[in-house]
Amino acid sequence: MAPANKGLSETGDPLLLTPGPLTTSKSVKAAMLHDWGSRDAAFLRLNREVLEWLPAIVCANGKYAAVPMQGSGTFAVEAMLTSFVPPSGKCLVLINGAYGKRAKRILDIARRTSVVYETAEDTPPDVAEVERILEADRAITHVFAVQCETTSGILNPIGAIAELERKFPVDVLVDAMSAFGALELDAPFLRIKAVAASSNKCIEGVPGLGFAICEPTALEACAGNATTLVLDLHDQWVNTNKTGQYRFTPPIHVIAAFHQALSEFRAEGGVAGRGGRYARNARVLIDGMRGLGFKTLLPDDLQAPIIVTFHMPKHPRFVFQTFYDKLKDRGYVIYPGKLTVADSFRIGCIGRLNEGHMRDTVANVAEVLAEMGVELTHAR
Amino acid sequence: MAPANKGLSETGDPLLLTPGPLTTSKSVKAAMLHDWGSRDAAFLRLNREVLEWLPAIVCANGKYAAVPMQGSGTFAVEAMLTSFVPPSGKCLVLINGAYGKRAKRILDIARRTSVVYETAEDTPPDVAEVERILEADRAITHVFAVQCETTSGILNPIGAIAELERKFPVDVLVDAMSAFGALELDAPFLRIKAVAASSNKCIEGVPGLGFAICEPTALEACAGNATTLVLDLHDQWVNTNKTGQYRFTPPIHVIAAFHQALSEFRAEGGVAGRGGRYARNARVLIDGMRGLGFKTLLPDDLQAPIIVTFHMPKHPRFVFQTFYDKLKDRGYVIYPGKLTVADSFRIGCIGRLNEGHMRDTVANVAEVLAEMGVELTHAR
Repeated sequence: MAPANKGLSETGDPLLLTPGPLTTSKSVKAAMLHDWGSRDAAFLRLNREVLEWLPAIVCANGKYAAVPMQGSGTFAVEAMLTSFVPPSGKCLVLINGAYGKRAKRILDIARRTSVVYETAEDTPPDVAEVERILEADRAITHVFAVQCETTSGILNPIGAIAELERKFPVDVLVDAMSAFGALELDAPFLRIKAVAASSNKCIEGVPGLGFAICEPTALEACAGNATTLVLDLHDQWVNTNKTGQYRFTPPIHVIAAFHQALSEFRAEGGVAGRGGRYARNARVLIDGMRGLGFKTLLPDDLQAPIIVTFHMPKHPRFVFQTFYDKLKDRGYVIYPGKLTVADSFRIGCIGRLNEGHMRDTVANVAEVLAEMGVELTHAR
Repeated sequence: MAPANKGLSETGDPLLLTPGPLTTSKSVKAAMLHDWGSRDAAFLRLNREVLEWLPAIVCANGKYAAVPMQGSGTFAVEAMLTSFVPPSGKCLVLINGAYGKRAKRILDIARRTSVVYETAEDTPPDVAEVERILEADRAITHVFAVQCETTSGILNPIGAIAELERKFPVDVLVDAMSAFGALELDAPFLRIKAVAASSNKCIEGVPGLGFAICEPTALEACAGNATTLVLDLHDQWVNTNKTGQYRFTPPIHVIAAFHQALSEFRAEGGVAGRGGRYARNARVLIDGMRGLGFKTLLPDDLQAPIIVTFHMPKHPRFVFQTFYDKLKDRGYVIYPGKLTVADSFRIGCIGRLNEGHMRDTVANVAEVLAEMGVELTHAR
């Protein structure tokens, strides 16, 4: 049998099988080979198109406003929480991983009242229980949820959670980060007030820009809520509307790359096309890894096609660092686990990767196992 | 006479004669043509070198800690102010332009007590008056100053201000932004506690990263002060020391470009070399523009070699938008004024520009004036 293919991106780099930053196309990176002034008409046109294109990804074309936030996804999440939840508000935080916990910490630091409903990392929130919590505590004004918790790769029931907004006077805020652009989310239909995400996940741009896609009436009501100057979504929005420019120096090259990435995303068929490719990637990966004897943390119906958590094999000769290093030498960068419930590692399905890359990944995993003298029992 | 040269950067873009984002070298932008994971050893080595190299630029090599902050320079300034000034503190803000005013706004939003000493945009603070203010108000714990106010291009007397730290129990915080890397600043000698700056000014990197260079004992004492998660300099520092990694996704490509920019900065001879080139640029620009009849806002002894403010000519045929557009068509992007004291425009001397570029700028200005039918009186 021929040896498995080495992992190689379009620019000769190892393939990033991670939750992001990801492998991006050569053309996305090449878009950064120019300089623009921050008031330059050509740059402002790129930026305007980026902000026009983003709401459509959550079915809110022309209905919601995209507000950019320099920094990273967490900067956008902190901006969303501190701008939307007023000092008099109370936020229910749904937690089943690191990103839910981070939202709770943000609210604590901002001195916003919050309560949590936490489930295990492999367990989505029980919507009936969320309803009971809202029923019992009428002071709750906001519900925060993570669409895909990359801690495990679990898909949370955003639709069912958001539906509770019809029964209770709460605003729903979503951290869509690693799902944005890959999984359907109809924000206006679900009456979600804001969706936060970033440039460097499923849109396949480079890191450096976060954003929140906001329902304008709710955003209008955020005036004066923010606890900082730079993370004030309302102020950023008002200023962009007035001047078309950023309040503070934008990451111009990152935005130029994001514009190119969004163009490529649209050319691939948007959420349906991009999400379809990732779903095929995940299928090849999961089937292949199970074929080698690995076990996934999650059953298929809870698994988002974003990143897959595998249980660490219990084989005496399986040493994760060796496994990781050998795969990296072959051009495949996987990701350590972050779970508290089980010893695990992760392999991402997103970025400039296709089914061929995923087949090659599995073939290389097989060769590395053989090199390590590890044969896993086929328990499936 | 031959027509003046068109402005053209190494990547074929117009030359940015602005306070930043600037014209950068081709090699700085080419450093972004790869993808790295945020935990990748090669990326972490680049990042470690960036953080090791930065303190030397303010004479604090091995003495101060560089703490990176995703976003932009203002993100770093807000992080510095909200991390260093505790809720019980009181900050004296020295204002003679937009950036001093912005610091005051940051402190107000963070509910930090502050007082201001404001002078006109063309007037540095009177150090004797600063001393009287500190003498009269013993509650003041911090003094914030801007090294070069790019609103006018004025150089503020940071040395004399910082010396007051020897007479009063105050910590000095400096926004060095547009001066960082071009003008000498001996932070340890002046006992300055923190200096904030960004990737896209005189180091000639691309925008997307701010940082603060901090005296470690003072930084240690900042624990728990911050008003947000993402802008917490102390938490960012502790985490970097512990893991070598960022708490939240770093702008990897921006940092790779910044690493290359710092390498080129060091090869040019650091502050002496870089500052020397900019000083020559400013000399050519100012002499040339005065030769055409333009007048600078500032006398030479207050002028930093960063950006030069010119009075708007009063000639009836001088229309600024036409002047700006014609220069831009020729490849020279100048900058509007931001002054309240006078109608003005600005021309920057920083970025990948040399004396030849500045001579070409002046030659193009002369041709544009001729096209507009404007002859200025040589009042000099």
